[in-house]
Amino acid sequence: MVNLTPNPSFSVTLRLQLPNKAGKLASVVQAIANTGGNMGPIDLIEQTLHTTVREFTVDASSTEHAEEIIESVKNLPDSKLLEVYDRTFNLHRSGKISINSKIPLKSQSDLAMAYTPGVGRICRAIADDPEQVYNLTIKQNTVAIVTDGSAVLGLGNLGPGGALPVMEGKAMLFKEFADIDAFPVCLDTQDPDAIVETVKNIAPVFGGINLEDIAAPRCFEIEARLREILEIPIFHDDQHGTAIVSLAALINALKLVNKPIEEVKIVLNGAGAAGIAIARLLKKAGATQIIICDSRGIISKGRSDLTPQKQEFAVELSGTIANAMKGADVFMGISVPGVITREMVKSMASDPIVFAMANPIPEIQPELITNDVAVIATGRSDYANQINNVLAFPGIFRGALDCRASSLTMSMYLEAAAAIAALVTANELSPENIVPSVFDKRVAIAVAAAVSHTARQEGIARR
Amino acid sequence: MVNLTPNPSFSVTLRLQLPNKAGKLASVVQAIANTGGNMGPIDLIEQTLHTTVREFTVDASSTEHAEEIIESVKNLPDSKLLEVYDRTFNLHRSGKISINSKIPLKSQSDLAMAYTPGVGRICRAIADDPEQVYNLTIKQNTVAIVTDGSAVLGLGNLGPGGALPVMEGKAMLFKEFADIDAFPVCLDTQDPDAIVETVKNIAPVFGGINLEDIAAPRCFEIEARLREILEIPIFHDDQHGTAIVSLAALINALKLVNKPIEEVKIVLNGAGAAGIAIARLLKKAGATQIIICDSRGIISKGRSDLTPQKQEFAVELSGTIANAMKGADVFMGISVPGVITREMVKSMASDPIVFAMANPIPEIQPELITNDVAVIATGRSDYANQINNVLAFPGIFRGALDCRASSLTMSMYLEAAAAIAALVTANELSPENIVPSVFDKRVAIAVAAAVSHTARQEGIARR
Repeated sequence: MVNLTPNPSFSVTLRLQLPNKAGKLASVVQAIANTGGNMGPIDLIEQTLHTTVREFTVDASSTEHAEEIIESVKNLPDSKLLEVYDRTFNLHRSGKISINSKIPLKSQSDLAMAYTPGVGRICRAIADDPEQVYNLTIKQNTVAIVTDGSAVLGLGNLGPGGALPVMEGKAMLFKEFADIDAFPVCLDTQDPDAIVETVKNIAPVFGGINLEDIAAPRCFEIEARLREILEIPIFHDDQHGTAIVSLAALINALKLVNKPIEEVKIVLNGAGAAGIAIARLLKKAGATQIIICDSRGIISKGRSDLTPQKQEFAVELSGTIANAMKGADVFMGISVPGVITREMVKSMASDPIVFAMANPIPEIQPELITNDVAVIATGRSDYANQINNVLAFPGIFRGALDCRASSLTMSMYLEAAAAIAALVTANELSPENIVPSVFDKRVAIAVAAAVSHTARQEGIARR
Repeated sequence: MVNLTPNPSFSVTLRLQLPNKAGKLASVVQAIANTGGNMGPIDLIEQTLHTTVREFTVDASSTEHAEEIIESVKNLPDSKLLEVYDRTFNLHRSGKISINSKIPLKSQSDLAMAYTPGVGRICRAIADDPEQVYNLTIKQNTVAIVTDGSAVLGLGNLGPGGALPVMEGKAMLFKEFADIDAFPVCLDTQDPDAIVETVKNIAPVFGGINLEDIAAPRCFEIEARLREILEIPIFHDDQHGTAIVSLAALINALKLVNKPIEEVKIVLNGAGAAGIAIARLLKKAGATQIIICDSRGIISKGRSDLTPQKQEFAVELSGTIANAMKGADVFMGISVPGVITREMVKSMASDPIVFAMANPIPEIQPELITNDVAVIATGRSDYANQINNVLAFPGIFRGALDCRASSLTMSMYLEAAAAIAALVTANELSPENIVPSVFDKRVAIAVAAAVSHTARQEGIARR
């Protein structure tokens, strides 16, 4: 197994008691270095004449690697391991979001206005003029993050409880990047009819619905039916978020290798929600040669096992992913860890572009092909060129809520991708910098503007 | 029509430009006083050699009264009304609650732990051990406030949008009084099957369900079915919250008139959710003589139009509410404005106790019977003795979440009422002070302790 890069998602904090003698700290640092752990801060907790207590925060590359690091210091002579914290677990205790009052509630007068009897007049005003719900309630800025837990990250069907930490994280991102109030709705059903019905029933509170981590092909049906019955934006982030950011990254990567999108051969591995949505958006952006593979190989016209969505992209060619990649200009993986080999990458056309976006572990470790490709991108925050949906969804909803768009369209997605790509200037563009940082505050603003503008052009802005 | 007491729920703010001359301010204050408006703060906004701009905040007693106040200053010579604000509407603009991140999200390291890839380990931990959802997500402290908008306050069937301001207010109260994260779920259906199904489907995120403003009799069925299928506390606040606080108030009111609960004749007007629940809890607390009236009069055994819940309390007596009240020791109204007359109150036994709890306008205005009763209480925050559910529900859920109770029981409600009543000491007890203030921080703590304690005794605490 290849050595992965240590990262904060596997970081541990070790509290160690050491003799207060020169060289003892150095021996700990050396022991950790020998395991390949990446040392973060070293805090001094307590120091007496004879002993020192310090906390070492170390990034590991996996749970096993973290264990190895812990073992390495346990075995040091004279040292005593007092405690081990898992920072990621610690950060999740009691959850990551809270619901708060925007206004003080400290006096009878506050209560009489915010609650009974004053609130009665507000209720009546909305009952008399239903549009007022957008002015007088949270609906104007609130989004539901809806999942059935059937396709959580790349981890599979973990159910609603297992999905909740991701949805809470998503709510944090909505707040941080677009000042949107988002709430997790993790459903105890994976039946499309029940999901549609439930979302319809809870919709009155929400200004938009973000579908998340719902497996294909049911996600297509659910999104289509909700778009039909609800007059608020519906956005399946695994499809459209991924598609928008992938296209933005591809626009910039193609500039680096000087190939037009109309002429490149693009191989997509993964025909789930993301794969199909990327293919559709690439086509809308002008791509003409798209080959999609699923776990059985190339989606070819000869196959009899294709969903309607797969049929849409079936090609004459057949064979394995290895066949597909020969001579390809672009590879995009939205599939599973480790399915691509260095040999396959080497069989691609000159200046190949590889987006290995499986999460949390890519289709191929970037370290393996650094010298074989023109551009490599992943879905991870700890490598360069992170294809992260957070570049799209906050701005998409910000724009839609701001102009009160009744729905979202492919044109909006195309404009959003162009807006993201345009934030990387010609000067800044490089193989290690094809997308803006997720912390670039301009991104959501630019995406929101693109969405609002397009909504107005298309006549679906209601404000 | 009787003159109501001005209150903040009808307050307006008037921005006036006046000549900068002695006596001009006095004439405005006098004009407002003549209308019966209750003057709050007077802010000085701007002053020049010739003019002064001030803002006058005035409590009115109704929308019509507010209009009258506005007219009175419009007609003043030399003054110019620049603007009128409705404070209650202003406070509701953009809604009253927000969803926030509990932890910072400022670096790649934060992202890698709170979101991908780190969050994947948390998801797996929960999928492997479902109980971990209580440790690693918001579920442990999060409550759904569920309504179908069918019985909003005393205002009737306003639908989900019209109900939302109340649910937001409720979420504020949950946070303020028990540090609970509560989120409004306003349903676009009033069908019991659909409500039960929807709540079941969204339950994985929540540690408890607070049902709110759902009309009788369907509220009984919905609560019973949800209790059956979910292993988290289900609480219909209109029933049990009202019952707990009414009982607490009655315990203390009866101390003042020195009558035991077992011996008093109690008349309840209103056989909806609250009426039935109060009757049930009073019975559990020892009451033996309870007469319930609905809009057709006394619920008597002779009637053929009774729901099963009403049948539970049918008596031999028949007639109108006026008949029922003759000789009664206690009247409790959970019905509609103005249905009780002073004559009916005068027909009661000596030292009568009247709880006129219709919201926002009581069954009888307290001003009318101040001298005819031993104790009067209402549901309003602007009179003494407010029978406010906020004394109960925050502590009920705090206690249930703290001990992870699998359900709520009548014994818990009884203990909660006793705990609330006990907070008013013998020294403090008076006809104007039978319940603690809603701002008394001890209330939720005492109620939570009573609930946890009872849950442990009953063997339904899971922690």
